[in-house]
Amino acid sequence: MAKGFTKREENYSEWYNELVAKADLAEHSDVRGCMIIKPYGYAIWEKMQAALDKMLKDTGHSNAYFPLFIPKSYLSKEAAHVKGFAKECAVVTHYRLKRADNGQGIVVDPEAKLEEELIIRPTSETIIWNSYRKWIQSYRDLPILVNQWANVVRWEMRTRLFLRTTEFLWQEGHTAHATEVEAVEEAEKILHLYADFAENWMALPVLKGIKTESERFAGAIETYCIEGLMQDGKALQCGTSHFLGQNFAKAFDVKFATKEGREEYVWASSWGVSTRLMGALIMAHSDDNGLVLPPKLAPQQVVIVPIYKNEDQLNQISEKAIEIKKSLEAKGISVKYDDRDTHKPGWKFAEYEFKGVPVRLAIGPRDMENNTVEIARRDTLEKDIVNQDGIAERIEKLLEEIQQNIFQKALKYREDNTQHVDNFDDFKNAIEKGGFVVAHWDGTTKTEEKIKQETKATVRCILFNGNQEAGKCVYSGNPSSQRVVFAKAY
Amino acid sequence: MAKGFTKREENYSEWYNELVAKADLAEHSDVRGCMIIKPYGYAIWEKMQAALDKMLKDTGHSNAYFPLFIPKSYLSKEAAHVKGFAKECAVVTHYRLKRADNGQGIVVDPEAKLEEELIIRPTSETIIWNSYRKWIQSYRDLPILVNQWANVVRWEMRTRLFLRTTEFLWQEGHTAHATEVEAVEEAEKILHLYADFAENWMALPVLKGIKTESERFAGAIETYCIEGLMQDGKALQCGTSHFLGQNFAKAFDVKFATKEGREEYVWASSWGVSTRLMGALIMAHSDDNGLVLPPKLAPQQVVIVPIYKNEDQLNQISEKAIEIKKSLEAKGISVKYDDRDTHKPGWKFAEYEFKGVPVRLAIGPRDMENNTVEIARRDTLEKDIVNQDGIAERIEKLLEEIQQNIFQKALKYREDNTQHVDNFDDFKNAIEKGGFVVAHWDGTTKTEEKIKQETKATVRCILFNGNQEAGKCVYSGNPSSQRVVFAKAY
Repeated sequence: MAKGFTKREENYSEWYNELVAKADLAEHSDVRGCMIIKPYGYAIWEKMQAALDKMLKDTGHSNAYFPLFIPKSYLSKEAAHVKGFAKECAVVTHYRLKRADNGQGIVVDPEAKLEEELIIRPTSETIIWNSYRKWIQSYRDLPILVNQWANVVRWEMRTRLFLRTTEFLWQEGHTAHATEVEAVEEAEKILHLYADFAENWMALPVLKGIKTESERFAGAIETYCIEGLMQDGKALQCGTSHFLGQNFAKAFDVKFATKEGREEYVWASSWGVSTRLMGALIMAHSDDNGLVLPPKLAPQQVVIVPIYKNEDQLNQISEKAIEIKKSLEAKGISVKYDDRDTHKPGWKFAEYEFKGVPVRLAIGPRDMENNTVEIARRDTLEKDIVNQDGIAERIEKLLEEIQQNIFQKALKYREDNTQHVDNFDDFKNAIEKGGFVVAHWDGTTKTEEKIKQETKATVRCILFNGNQEAGKCVYSGNPSSQRVVFAKAY
Repeated sequence: MAKGFTKREENYSEWYNELVAKADLAEHSDVRGCMIIKPYGYAIWEKMQAALDKMLKDTGHSNAYFPLFIPKSYLSKEAAHVKGFAKECAVVTHYRLKRADNGQGIVVDPEAKLEEELIIRPTSETIIWNSYRKWIQSYRDLPILVNQWANVVRWEMRTRLFLRTTEFLWQEGHTAHATEVEAVEEAEKILHLYADFAENWMALPVLKGIKTESERFAGAIETYCIEGLMQDGKALQCGTSHFLGQNFAKAFDVKFATKEGREEYVWASSWGVSTRLMGALIMAHSDDNGLVLPPKLAPQQVVIVPIYKNEDQLNQISEKAIEIKKSLEAKGISVKYDDRDTHKPGWKFAEYEFKGVPVRLAIGPRDMENNTVEIARRDTLEKDIVNQDGIAERIEKLLEEIQQNIFQKALKYREDNTQHVDNFDDFKNAIEKGGFVVAHWDGTTKTEEKIKQETKATVRCILFNGNQEAGKCVYSGNPSSQRVVFAKAY
């Protein structure tokens, strides 16, 4: 399966594309920039959804569903918001097709033109805050902690599977609060929740911080983000959380009566992660043999492959394999027993290795004699022959170990690829080399833009709880009070 | 809460609208025909999704995701299909907005016109079969058993919350098979699965049958359906499953090499249920006091309300309530303990009754003295004072009993409202009265249309395994070999 598979160091981008295709994760559709998420890829996304959904519910959030369509006039109500999204909107103008007058094919019926065009939601702040106006009268109606799982559309010119697609799947939380403090706390709480999810489920260490003004969400007062580092040394923004102030409440006239009877505008946060996380997951951990999945997100955590020469052997092995399967499933571990006779064991080994199944068990006639089983782990590719007794406990522990190992490996990679620099020559060299570059910056958009022009690097984030440290901007030499994190990014 | 709430017999339609609004299930958005599913309504939908998704996975189906957009030309490839959907398509024609030349507001950028218009999927057969062409080469690639959870858009002129909306949520299964027999078996298997779901989760008895030609899905050879009966005597189609023959395989040129090396077109089925089921659930069981939910689909199965005069009493009651809550949760029962001091017990009782929480527990000072608790069940509105000992087992049993009772009540209603008639006068009277009317029909579309014109009744289905019985069509007097089921329908 890995035959003819491009290596990371040969061409990282090509490696990624081939991996996504050959591991059956996703493919391009005929519709520009829209992807098809194939069953294996979708099963990973479902695991991510389930874990994150539970974390959101455990912290008091509920799901709801708002319309796909946003009236064009809504988008215009918040000035920065429309500026940020107008250039990438899919617009519905008609609601009917008809047979062409010449009888050849079907055409849009010009008589079915909408009075007001509808935008396919690029994000739902506007339609949701228009609803909140009706939902909120008094402080008793607050906070509102609502999330939705939905598809959104942003007309992207250059697209890549999972990383940047015209249509993508995501969750978007939209919360309403009585005070500024509460709304800020919510935005920060979610950022920590995202980081927790990235690290403990995706095994991906992330930096937590604040975006600069130029990278802020259109309509936000403050944008918080988590940033991961991919194996080519480029950063990937994995999730954002926004403190929106009263911007949308003012745009949509959403006020509430305080306990004291005053009327005030409502405070807001919004936050989201998307199928882009699939791209992060793939790029952070996978290797030249294919996909590497953290066990917590693997659709199948264990696969068992029988090795046999005749039906008698198969029957005996199957009995044992099913016994092991059951003992694993009793521990909540997902197991596939692959006894298909259409494929040889070697083919199956290659297949599951490429698809990133964390643990592979093989049982042959000699194992039956010796009461053993062969265990292969995907992360290190190590193999071991072990006793069948206590196999379930052993594998349970091994899956935890693999989860930890994948995280530690990614953490070490990040540490090895984080450089502190103090002048612009070192800065340029460090950016050229790749990874996170931690440097002083004078805090101006102008400098940020110059640096981007010259190096393609952007400020990924200003770290939460970053050490205050006096210094000089690597570009302008002007004073700076804190180092920030630069990188080239996806 | 139920004050000023319209009774079913006063105005069933108004009763439904008020119920959906006051129980916080859904509301209209400003976008014509599009609904907002509120958190409480969405929580019920999530329960339905989870149960059905598990049933589909347990029968070998996987989820995937295909694009929201369908190129206009795809829709035209299957003749019957485009005829069925062309008149209700939302059409995307542009991909950018810009500031108006006069500076006033934003307009569609005429330069960002798509070469080919995109249709928002009304259903996904075309885009999926276009992909299957690439996925299927040989019999080894079959069957494909794929499902997707998605939003779809059909531009409806008259809409009602959940029952008929422009955008709705659904699951759509699309399967590909090597033989006709297999594809038919799949379509029938899913129909039985849907019926199982309706009866065992929604507590809704359904008739299983086949649609007449005029009610068939656009592009299907055969459409199977489940039909429920609502409390106003109208039928509601709850789910459909289609045997598509080779229609889409031929339209999209999807062939496979058989075991014997021949090249053949692939056989197909498709099937779906939608948020319309929410409407069925509400209309089948609820009463003049509000929503009635089968326990298996209730977001909260049990609510506990403390009754107290001072903080000391509350503290004692809370300790006991939390103990009971934990013992119930240990049995997998979802419980809310509502100790809010902002609302009185009477208000809470009314609220949970209206929202259909199956079991309400109340604990007051006298209960603490007597080691008792008051149990109220929503379906019968009966109350009982019982001992606190063994309360978890008692409630576990009670929830099962309520689930059964709601089903039996709906079943009795259907039986009481199913009439067999043998002439057209009786037919008209029976239809006027409401319910399912079982009568002979000559099998022609012409007669079906005449009956519809004169009585507004349609053939809901030709029952699976319906008794063969010679008779005469109630309308034309022509021979008939089997009775079919008529009703007025949503």
